[in-house]
Amino acid sequence: MRDDLGWQDYESGSCSIARAVESLGDRWTILILRDLFNGVHRFDDLLDHLGVSRDVLTRRLAVLLDEGLVERRPYREAGRRARADYHLTPAGRDLQPVLVALLQWGDAHRAGADGPPTRLEHRDCGGEVGIRLTCSEGHDVRRWEVVNRPQAGARLRAG
Amino acid sequence: MRDDLGWQDYESGSCSIARAVESLGDRWTILILRDLFNGVHRFDDLLDHLGVSRDVLTRRLAVLLDEGLVERRPYREAGRRARADYHLTPAGRDLQPVLVALLQWGDAHRAGADGPPTRLEHRDCGGEVGIRLTCSEGHDVRRWEVVNRPQAGARLRAG
Repeated sequence: MRDDLGWQDYESGSCSIARAVESLGDRWTILILRDLFNGVHRFDDLLDHLGVSRDVLTRRLAVLLDEGLVERRPYREAGRRARADYHLTPAGRDLQPVLVALLQWGDAHRAGADGPPTRLEHRDCGGEVGIRLTCSEGHDVRRWEVVNRPQAGARLRAG
Repeated sequence: MRDDLGWQDYESGSCSIARAVESLGDRWTILILRDLFNGVHRFDDLLDHLGVSRDVLTRRLAVLLDEGLVERRPYREAGRRARADYHLTPAGRDLQPVLVALLQWGDAHRAGADGPPTRLEHRDCGGEVGIRLTCSEGHDVRRWEVVNRPQAGARLRAG
C-alpha cells in the first residue's frame, strides 16, 4: 500500500469480503449451506427443517446454483419418479471455515443457559474443532497483529 | 447425540450459526464491521466508503449497537460540536475470524485477473495470515474429519 493511501481510498465493493457476501446473500443462504454441510440434501427436507417459505428456498437455491456453490444431483427411489437433490460443490465446501467461524462466535456470545447447542469434534481424537488465525510462517496470530495491505487486485476509488 | 436422532431432529433456529447470522443481519452489516476493523469509525466516512444509503446505515448501526457488537464513543474536534463515532466492542472484535474466513474464500474464489485485492500480513514476520481448522489436541483438522455433535444446549423440535 502506498503510504499516502488508506483503506477508504480503495473501492468498498472490490474487496474479497464484499465479493464473498455478495455471493452468499442473506441469512437464509448461510442456513441452507449449514444444512447441506449437515447432510440435508432434499428440497422438502430443507423446507421442513429451516421453516423457510417455498418461494424463498427456491430463489436462494437458484442463486447458490448460479454462484457454483451448490449442484443438483439426480436420484431415484424405487418405484418413484426421478428427482434431484442438492449438494455442495468444492467451492461450496470451501465455505466450511466461514460456518465454523460463525458457529464459534455464536457459541461464545449467543449460547443460552445450557451452553452451546453443538460441539464440533475431530473424528480421529475427539478434540474440539475450532478455527485459529495463523500465518504462513507457522505462527499463531493475535487479532491486533494483522495488517491489511492492498495488492494488485485492489481498486482505487474514482475521483 | 442419540444414535436414533439426526441433524433434522434438532431445531434449526437454536443452532449457534443461526444465532450468529441473526445478530449479523445482512451483507451491509458485514461490510460495516469490515470497515470498522479497517479503521473507518465515523458515520459520514462509512456512508461515503460503503455507498450505502443514510437510512440503511443508520438502521444497521442501531442493530449493531443493540447487539452489543459496536459502541459509540464521543469525540470533539477543536472548534466543533461534540460528536460520536463507532467502534467495535470485544464481542464485535471476536468476529474477526468470520471476516478473515470470508476474505479467504473471496480471495480463492472471487478474485479477478489481478489477484486478491488485499493481503493480510502478520505484523511481526510479514507472513500471510489465514485461518485454519485445528482441534483442542493441537491437530490440523481436514474438512471431512469434523463431526457435529448436539450438546445440552440443543433443542429437539416439537412434535
